[in-house]
Amino acid sequence: MPRWESDAQGRLERAALELFETQGFERTSVAQIAGAAGLKERSFYRYFPDKREVLFAGNELEAHLVAQVEAADPGLTPIEALLAALGTAEEIFRPREFLLRRARVIAANPALAERDLIKLAAIADALAPALERRGVEPGKVRFMIDVVLAIHRRAMPRWLAEPDTTLAQLMAQAAAELCEVVAPPAPTIR
Amino acid sequence: MPRWESDAQGRLERAALELFETQGFERTSVAQIAGAAGLKERSFYRYFPDKREVLFAGNELEAHLVAQVEAADPGLTPIEALLAALGTAEEIFRPREFLLRRARVIAANPALAERDLIKLAAIADALAPALERRGVEPGKVRFMIDVVLAIHRRAMPRWLAEPDTTLAQLMAQAAAELCEVVAPPAPTIR
Repeated sequence: MPRWESDAQGRLERAALELFETQGFERTSVAQIAGAAGLKERSFYRYFPDKREVLFAGNELEAHLVAQVEAADPGLTPIEALLAALGTAEEIFRPREFLLRRARVIAANPALAERDLIKLAAIADALAPALERRGVEPGKVRFMIDVVLAIHRRAMPRWLAEPDTTLAQLMAQAAAELCEVVAPPAPTIR
Repeated sequence: MPRWESDAQGRLERAALELFETQGFERTSVAQIAGAAGLKERSFYRYFPDKREVLFAGNELEAHLVAQVEAADPGLTPIEALLAALGTAEEIFRPREFLLRRARVIAANPALAERDLIKLAAIADALAPALERRGVEPGKVRFMIDVVLAIHRRAMPRWLAEPDTTLAQLMAQAAAELCEVVAPPAPTIR
């Protein structure tokens, strides 16, 4: 990831994560983040509209996911296209070690956890038209996306914690678990 | 629902919904809501911490759902207990006609849509311990809840639009749809 390692946006993201970890999200100012990244406060706002957004990289992930679903092999079913897009996006997006630390910081800060929910909902909205174009009936699109996001959420902490796995693998496992989670167990003698 | 019809909280909720519909969420003040409900502005804050919360009834729904899962027949599987709790809560909570109008107002206002996401996440967090006490392994609890919330979200608009249905029925249908949504289709000659 040479570009992200050296560019101003990447420096701001890493500086912010470091400061949020050491002194807390609330006690960190935008000026401090910019300073730690060797930039002026003003420059921060060229990349991010506010302090929370520095951990969410604007609409980069959303745009990437939509493009992936749009470009997916036409032979894939819509759900396969969606699972494939989400299963490969994270590692391209940021290094796993950064994502692991980021997940901890988000979980510990209600303001960041809220932003995370809002970004996920925006991603779900943005993916809907791409799935409709792949022939999913409109009433089912959001359901499919919600289910895939649940699968993603199930797989993510395991992937972050277990370096020898791929996210796509763990998402496939979670998808397989799904019917078993929902279906009532076969009747047995108790 | 005689209590809700006549009490101050119910009057505030109905007045707020009416004002949000006619003049918009942004242009409505807490003072106007209180005034329309025949109350002083101060009284509003006895029931709700802010203007958004008036459509979410504090922690009432959350508390109700947790109590339902806690009290569910021990013979039900955890997922059955969860589906049953969510499938019956809404109609007890507020009249369907109120919920239909409420859903439209929330969908039209980003500030309310955000609060809705946050309340849902809080409900998910609150339900987790109740499911763990029913024997669901901790790693799967959130997955199960996310999936049931996706099912709920799939069923809700149909239930609101179709007066002769029950939410529990439509949730059962959506749950049945689930495996089909996720499973790749059986191979066929294309």
